[in-house]
Amino acid sequence: MKTRAAVALEAGKPLEIMDVNLEGPKAGEVLVEIKATGLCHTDEFTRSGADPEGAFPAILGHEGAGIVQEVGPGVTSVKPGDHVIPLYTPECRECEYCLNPKTNLCQAIRTTQGQGVMPDGTSRFSMEDGTPILHYMGCSTFSNFTVLPEIALAKVNPDAPFDKICYIGCGVTTGIGAVINTAKVEPGSRCVVFGLGGIGLNVIQGLRLVGAEMIVGVDINDSKKEIAERFGMTHFVNPNEVEGDLVPYLVDLTKGGADYSFECIGKTPLMRQALECAHKGWGESIIIGVAGAGEEISTRPFQLVTGRTWKGSAFGGARGRTDVPKIVEWYMQGKIEIDPMITHKLTLDEINHGFELMHEGKSIRAVVEY
Amino acid sequence: MKTRAAVALEAGKPLEIMDVNLEGPKAGEVLVEIKATGLCHTDEFTRSGADPEGAFPAILGHEGAGIVQEVGPGVTSVKPGDHVIPLYTPECRECEYCLNPKTNLCQAIRTTQGQGVMPDGTSRFSMEDGTPILHYMGCSTFSNFTVLPEIALAKVNPDAPFDKICYIGCGVTTGIGAVINTAKVEPGSRCVVFGLGGIGLNVIQGLRLVGAEMIVGVDINDSKKEIAERFGMTHFVNPNEVEGDLVPYLVDLTKGGADYSFECIGKTPLMRQALECAHKGWGESIIIGVAGAGEEISTRPFQLVTGRTWKGSAFGGARGRTDVPKIVEWYMQGKIEIDPMITHKLTLDEINHGFELMHEGKSIRAVVEY
Repeated sequence: MKTRAAVALEAGKPLEIMDVNLEGPKAGEVLVEIKATGLCHTDEFTRSGADPEGAFPAILGHEGAGIVQEVGPGVTSVKPGDHVIPLYTPECRECEYCLNPKTNLCQAIRTTQGQGVMPDGTSRFSMEDGTPILHYMGCSTFSNFTVLPEIALAKVNPDAPFDKICYIGCGVTTGIGAVINTAKVEPGSRCVVFGLGGIGLNVIQGLRLVGAEMIVGVDINDSKKEIAERFGMTHFVNPNEVEGDLVPYLVDLTKGGADYSFECIGKTPLMRQALECAHKGWGESIIIGVAGAGEEISTRPFQLVTGRTWKGSAFGGARGRTDVPKIVEWYMQGKIEIDPMITHKLTLDEINHGFELMHEGKSIRAVVEY
Repeated sequence: MKTRAAVALEAGKPLEIMDVNLEGPKAGEVLVEIKATGLCHTDEFTRSGADPEGAFPAILGHEGAGIVQEVGPGVTSVKPGDHVIPLYTPECRECEYCLNPKTNLCQAIRTTQGQGVMPDGTSRFSMEDGTPILHYMGCSTFSNFTVLPEIALAKVNPDAPFDKICYIGCGVTTGIGAVINTAKVEPGSRCVVFGLGGIGLNVIQGLRLVGAEMIVGVDINDSKKEIAERFGMTHFVNPNEVEGDLVPYLVDLTKGGADYSFECIGKTPLMRQALECAHKGWGESIIIGVAGAGEEISTRPFQLVTGRTWKGSAFGGARGRTDVPKIVEWYMQGKIEIDPMITHKLTLDEINHGFELMHEGKSIRAVVEY
């Protein structure tokens, strides 16, 4: 079949909107009509050429929601008509990782997914001339139709609006999950969140959800204050307006240090500040942001020996097929909010404008609706 | 009263054995006759002048065991005749830290202890001419008699031999505690221990105690292999004999990485290796060794984002008054061994020779008996 898609032909170039060929699902695979997709910084990281593992041509996009159109042989957990969210972190429920309760990093299809192909080693996408186009993060939601492995689909409430729940495919789950799965924040905790973008706001609403007492947001952009307060932030700190060092300021503000801190930007100096503002004895710092290639974090080991813990979180520690449907329900029940974070709606033809909005800091989430 | 003590008069000089004045215990304090004390690298770190917080003159030593001689007003938990182990990490059971189950770092007397004085701000030790001599780590076990706060004494089984259980005052508890309190290692775990000295061997026997499946010891000194095997090491790795990089070698040996790794030396490059040989998804690395002043640890944040956790451990995460008596019982019951680690016995007059043995790598623990 043919499908309309935004194709990343080369690193650093705008995406090109075109019709591409899409083969139907093979065994264990599912054809999905994508109804909406968010634009995430990770897509832009790859598009721009900054991602050392980026390969082209590829169809980017990993934050989508849609409807199952057709299933390949052996597929049992979803059927045509089911509403689904693609999972860039799948959940096979059989590998050593899925069977270990300490991690969500299913390894079942990691190698082929990293290579931009389906588990059988081939791509379902191709150009008019037959040249294969790579899949991206196993999702390729910048295509109106896409093929995914069954284990990479979360079946969700069909009443949920695609243009909102697509965001649960990455940003919402990453932020809320880091709070509830990775940090396991307790009610009454004092927390610091570095970066009030699309991830940081979801960390903040995750902290509100679990009853954190103090939710400090740190951002150099004062304009983020209002929306962050709407999602539960109790204190705002602009580092540029702090006299002296930020870390002792935050330790003082949190009465000894953060029980939990979160880095949601991807800047290694902030990762250090996040660790060092954590409370002696028990503070935990969670890295969520993705740093530039080759960048390193540092600190004095004394910070750890005196009781701080340094962790990271990927996809919010969530097991997608199990946890994503629950988060969709929380949205439907009003326990979490998404609507105010979807600041821009675009057509696929306007997708490059979405990346401009991201660079200009004007959007929290721009969503493409097909 | 007068007491015989080894006094560190200046940084970098040998200790001088002399009679010093000792005032009796004030309110909340206890006079203890030290019967035996181990020589720890931390004593040597301060004696040598490498410790930026070292202050002189001082009576070093923090790994002792002895008998209560006299108690000051208000002391209720110990009485003359009780056998005790001094605690450089006290346990007041009242401060914010003692009341938080996540930490053992009681802060009740931290400031004065760091200044080398008792909680009232003064020292009990002085020279013949009246010049005060500082306490060290709140213990000063290189003196035959010493005064400690009541909250810094663990009351232990009076049948236990002083020349063995003194080691529980630091090294034994630090190593075993890092396994059971900080890492909380589960049976069947695969573990890597960097450094087979006085701490590493106790980590190893802690791992044996909790039923670890694979206990890999890493040391550049082949002569450590035999004793480490005696304490439970299952695999020995000499990095100098590994072709290529150590980290992938250890990941391969442990079938994907260590569930838990421990750095027991204090070298920041090894702390990085210990982290990076931990298993993707769930591996935890525990820093126990004390790094040189100003040294920093580094890694790529990707190591944490893909599921590794970086922690530290001080005094094995043990609450001294509660946990040290239990470890003494484990020794008495044969659950842990100490005797083969006490490689040298010295008199107080020979104490400087003990530091020479330490530098030559000839001792695991040298113990001074009074």
